[in-house]
Amino acid sequence: MPSYDPDNIFAKILRGEFPAYKVYEDDRTLAFLDIMPQAPGHTLVVPKTAARNVLDVEPDDLAYLIKVTQKIAKAAMTVFAADGLNVFQFNEPAAGQSVFHLHFHVIPRKQGIALRPPASFKEDPAVLADQAAKLAAALKG
Amino acid sequence: MPSYDPDNIFAKILRGEFPAYKVYEDDRTLAFLDIMPQAPGHTLVVPKTAARNVLDVEPDDLAYLIKVTQKIAKAAMTVFAADGLNVFQFNEPAAGQSVFHLHFHVIPRKQGIALRPPASFKEDPAVLADQAAKLAAALKG
Repeated sequence: MPSYDPDNIFAKILRGEFPAYKVYEDDRTLAFLDIMPQAPGHTLVVPKTAARNVLDVEPDDLAYLIKVTQKIAKAAMTVFAADGLNVFQFNEPAAGQSVFHLHFHVIPRKQGIALRPPASFKEDPAVLADQAAKLAAALKG
Repeated sequence: MPSYDPDNIFAKILRGEFPAYKVYEDDRTLAFLDIMPQAPGHTLVVPKTAARNVLDVEPDDLAYLIKVTQKIAKAAMTVFAADGLNVFQFNEPAAGQSVFHLHFHVIPRKQGIALRPPASFKEDPAVLADQAAKLAAALKG
């Protein structure tokens, strides 16, 4: 497996070099909306440590990350009035990974509505800003 | 969300009332092969506690479960000579959950080979037995 590339887009977001619709942040993790959501509220949760994916992350960092992912998932169910929710994590291009910084996808689902294919739809920035504000507020509450 | 149903098939596997191709077990988790794999080596990792999905599991149980999932993932990459690996976790029917005991899917991937649709293919028991033995051996090693 290639080593971690610090120029990936999520590393740039973590360093403040690229904007994101942030919904949650603590000293070890950051969560922000996917700008090409597979469903409304599609959120990405990343560790602040340099990890390419689940195959190289430190187990304790991974354990902390999934706890934060759970918090995001519970809040997203309410904020997006979801009937269900997918948690996805992809490792390497053969599995669909396209950004090489570990991330969990949290995707709220409505009964009977299929996921959009990955990277098939770019959401309106105003919609993303509104969704991020609502999810961030729920996570603070 | 409905409460936990102790008659689900994974609960029966945990109680020894139903067989499984086990690959790993400790005091808090069990991992076994999916008998309808989306790709060779498709493994399910479950906690021994009663949890329907990520929305009701105790955070510490979830954190432990993902650490075990990581161990399975690393071993599966080697045993199945995978190019990548998906980690999936579904919550509620709207998201594709069909067994209502929390589980992570670990699915080894080969470059260019698509996943089979869920529950579309039943693997040969002899193949499953052989794969489970190899993965279990790698996890002990």
